[in-house]
Amino acid sequence: MGKDTEAAAGDYGAKDYTDPPPEPLVDAEELGKWSLYRAVIAEFVATLLFLYVTVATVIGYKHQSDSTVNGADAACGGVGILGIAWAFGGMIFILVYCTAGISGGHINPAVTFGLFLARKVTLVRALLYMIAQCLGAICGVGLVKGFQRAFFVRYGGGANELSGGYSKGTGLGAEIIGTFVLVYTVFAATDPKRNARDSHVPVLAPLPIGFAVFMVHLATIPVTGTGINPARSFGAAVIYNNDKAWDDQWIFWVGPFIGAAIAAGYHQYILRAGAVKALGSFRS
Amino acid sequence: MGKDTEAAAGDYGAKDYTDPPPEPLVDAEELGKWSLYRAVIAEFVATLLFLYVTVATVIGYKHQSDSTVNGADAACGGVGILGIAWAFGGMIFILVYCTAGISGGHINPAVTFGLFLARKVTLVRALLYMIAQCLGAICGVGLVKGFQRAFFVRYGGGANELSGGYSKGTGLGAEIIGTFVLVYTVFAATDPKRNARDSHVPVLAPLPIGFAVFMVHLATIPVTGTGINPARSFGAAVIYNNDKAWDDQWIFWVGPFIGAAIAAGYHQYILRAGAVKALGSFRS
Amino acid sequence: MGKDTEAAAGDYGAKDYTDPPPEPLVDAEELGKWSLYRAVIAEFVATLLFLYVTVATVIGYKHQSDSTVNGADAACGGVGILGIAWAFGGMIFILVYCTAGISGGHINPAVTFGLFLARKVTLVRALLYMIAQCLGAICGVGLVKGFQRAFFVRYGGGANELSGGYSKGTGLGAEIIGTFVLVYTVFAATDPKRNARDSHVPVLAPLPIGFAVFMVHLATIPVTGTGINPARSFGAAVIYNNDKAWDDQWIFWVGPFIGAAIAAGYHQYILRAGAVKALGSFRS
Amino acid sequence: MGKDTEAAAGDYGAKDYTDPPPEPLVDAEELGKWSLYRAVIAEFVATLLFLYVTVATVIGYKHQSDSTVNGADAACGGVGILGIAWAFGGMIFILVYCTAGISGGHINPAVTFGLFLARKVTLVRALLYMIAQCLGAICGVGLVKGFQRAFFVRYGGGANELSGGYSKGTGLGAEIIGTFVLVYTVFAATDPKRNARDSHVPVLAPLPIGFAVFMVHLATIPVTGTGINPARSFGAAVIYNNDKAWDDQWIFWVGPFIGAAIAAGYHQYILRAGAVKALGSFRS
Repeated sequence: MGKDTEAAAGDYGAKDYTDPPPEPLVDAEELGKWSLYRAVIAEFVATLLFLYVTVATVIGYKHQSDSTVNGADAACGGVGILGIAWAFGGMIFILVYCTAGISGGHINPAVTFGLFLARKVTLVRALLYMIAQCLGAICGVGLVKGFQRAFFVRYGGGANELSGGYSKGTGLGAEIIGTFVLVYTVFAATDPKRNARDSHVPVLAPLPIGFAVFMVHLATIPVTGTGINPARSFGAAVIYNNDKAWDDQWIFWVGPFIGAAIAAGYHQYILRAGAVKALGSFRS
Repeated sequence: MGKDTEAAAGDYGAKDYTDPPPEPLVDAEELGKWSLYRAVIAEFVATLLFLYVTVATVIGYKHQSDSTVNGADAACGGVGILGIAWAFGGMIFILVYCTAGISGGHINPAVTFGLFLARKVTLVRALLYMIAQCLGAICGVGLVKGFQRAFFVRYGGGANELSGGYSKGTGLGAEIIGTFVLVYTVFAATDPKRNARDSHVPVLAPLPIGFAVFMVHLATIPVTGTGINPARSFGAAVIYNNDKAWDDQWIFWVGPFIGAAIAAGYHQYILRAGAVKALGSFRS
Repeated sequence: MGKDTEAAAGDYGAKDYTDPPPEPLVDAEELGKWSLYRAVIAEFVATLLFLYVTVATVIGYKHQSDSTVNGADAACGGVGILGIAWAFGGMIFILVYCTAGISGGHINPAVTFGLFLARKVTLVRALLYMIAQCLGAICGVGLVKGFQRAFFVRYGGGANELSGGYSKGTGLGAEIIGTFVLVYTVFAATDPKRNARDSHVPVLAPLPIGFAVFMVHLATIPVTGTGINPARSFGAAVIYNNDKAWDDQWIFWVGPFIGAAIAAGYHQYILRAGAVKALGSFRS
Repeated sequence: MGKDTEAAAGDYGAKDYTDPPPEPLVDAEELGKWSLYRAVIAEFVATLLFLYVTVATVIGYKHQSDSTVNGADAACGGVGILGIAWAFGGMIFILVYCTAGISGGHINPAVTFGLFLARKVTLVRALLYMIAQCLGAICGVGLVKGFQRAFFVRYGGGANELSGGYSKGTGLGAEIIGTFVLVYTVFAATDPKRNARDSHVPVLAPLPIGFAVFMVHLATIPVTGTGINPARSFGAAVIYNNDKAWDDQWIFWVGPFIGAAIAAGYHQYILRAGAVKALGSFRS
């Protein structure tokens, strides 16, 4: 944490790492490779599992803690909001761990969008990922509805909606900052500079990414239920199919995409000093 | 998380890792080695400790939060369902950590079955492991019954049963998907491809495996109590010896074995591209 | 954990690591580098995110668990004090992870002060960091106030105050020891000796630092709400602007700075044996 | 987790690691080195911090959740038993992390005893460590009493006592198994064989050790409050100085020492195959 670390990372005169070249928008060769389709399947399965586990946790908690059903003691039943936050963060941890080597482990259209802006994935790949993520989310929430038929609609279907007492601007702001925290962590964890120079923590990448999701849920479940993942919000809205969920849906696409774009810009132009390089460093 | 990671892992033309050859069904030489018996003992001890700690946590929680015994305030006593989920996930984390170098750290017949299907262990070893796991589970739950004589039967003995309001199909489905999450994580964590190519996270293997167990418990404790480990369900049923627990017992064997088989197939034929290799890649 | 580890680390006759030379108080060259300003921006952003997430968690919890608003069942709503402690510890984990390579990841004037005393950062850098941290904290709490207008003042604004029934001396003592735990962990995690000799855990640095913050919050939320970070206490006091918060403010500057100084001294003079070296070792 | 891992670790014909020679009972040269005294100081400070944070968490929780003081809603106040278990486990994680390179990071006479039996530390060092741990524990609990004068005695002073409804044999058994889990994890984490052959998880050592403590607390807080650390039980008894705490004190010394001895034996004679080597392997 001292300046020695910083000094090692701060002087970009002599680079000891290689920035991969930006990905093209369309890479024809990529389309002929099994590895692309395998990655799309992996994103579909991972997002399905993500929504299945997390929405099942939400519904199960709301049922167990429903004192009109289970008596006054039930108020403390279930895993609590802390348990729900763990479910979202913990699933992202294990799914990024499992799919990082196959698809890069996005599991979230906002992450895919941020990495596309930074030219880490092609446009074609980005679009295929987002479609797979949305379909996976729909199937995952659908499974929960099938399993929990009696409770699913009653307890809100795990859908993201703006809570009473908060304006649309607040909800949008909460989604922007929350997604910024997540995508900023993703960029920090996958920076090629880190791998080359910073011996601190390269092996831990999926853990802080999962924790970022956990933290944002602790902070904003009371405001919007916490989206920061358009596929998660979209899948839940499709299966729950409630007017309020659809009315608020735009917040959970616009917010995360803006947040991801800001994180990509912050990483590229401030932390990686792209802006300064472009203007000519004031050092020389 | 970008395509560079994927690109490195996606082109299987030039392999820089070695797939170990499939294990035979019976390996006569293995039977003469102390290391096999040592591994069986380690599985027995680990499963015993797993059941002892987790079932003790369940019984202790139910006793402390019993408001008919301890008054109305007690409803919030104990570690909560979140604490129970931590107990299952955390024990798997430390026991996989401790036994990985001795026995591979299965501690679960479904994991052993999945690794047997992938030909990572011999049939003989798989059967010995499963017997040791079931015996260990019985001893572990027996210890809890001995220690908690007054409360054990009253609070359900930690046995897995289908909760009221859920069909057998739902229970079976929950066990299949839950075990899929676990065994998929195990395959991802132990893939030789990962160790060679993916510098992301090889050292973290036991942590995501433990988290997978934690997550599945958050989601399905309200449905089945969460088995995803036939030894755990069997050991608790033997000691608790209740009709309902025995009637539902098949769910906790059939479900996990199906889930493990799907995970093994998904890993071998989709992610490792076995299917495509067999059919001839459409690339060339 | 045996003596072999200790033996390897204990004999400082032949050093196999390099202590970087102490930083000067002012380094003119540093002032001309973009890397300094980038680091200051990173500290500002990280402290902003830290306060935004943690104070939003505190306010959201207090609103949800307010039984005068939400009925008797609400007493168990929200993430609990355990969730609040996780928010503080978890955010420090991910923010240290993200900014370690840019600024060293201080996010806390007490940490900066401790590293300055150990001559790991220049005086100029230390002052710029502290200003950035305080401004970031003000902006982070301000965001929460903007988002949670209805509840912010009602639920205490996340400000640190001495709880009823505790003397000023107790509060000061709690802050000193709490900051000692944190800064001691920071020194242990970033010791160059560790990196060279101790193969135990160099890659884990941000995780124990985050856990240190988590632990201290578990212990002292009932006493002072837990500061151990003057920027966090100052930012909350500026936005909440309450007499009691300002009256107690000195505790949250004096305590952490004393704790950080003791930790720096303990590390330099006892653990790194500086005192003995200065007096002449009694070994020869 | 497959047999390949096991195969690599199972054949002890050709060793690729070095077992350090057993430590002597008394090492005169050691007594003249500053590194011994530095290690003793580090054990004292670490045990002091351990008891300070954990007992403060216990007392603070009991005060906040006391409904006779704070009204009915208070039943859910505080960090919960889950938070208490986290405090014990999390502190061991960070303290082992911080002191592993200085003293080996024991912080527990039972761990020191187990490592002494395995001849990893000299008798002199073991005795000095135990004295430092007990003194540190007394000082840590004393600090809490000083800070929480009003609540300390009222809420039981964090002392370990056998809960009502459990026999002395049950308490002893719970302590034996709990300490076995901890010391078994310590041996697994510090095995030189692991470091050389098993690339799985050497860097994670302090994390599973902390989790082992966390898990045991989840399981046995209802039975004995969970000791598994004689210094922790002794320090709390000295400061609380209550007849019941002293009457039960022997359980918290005999149990942990037996558990540590069994763990040391299990590791040396079963897992490291010492027994078989002594008898002549049945392989040849």
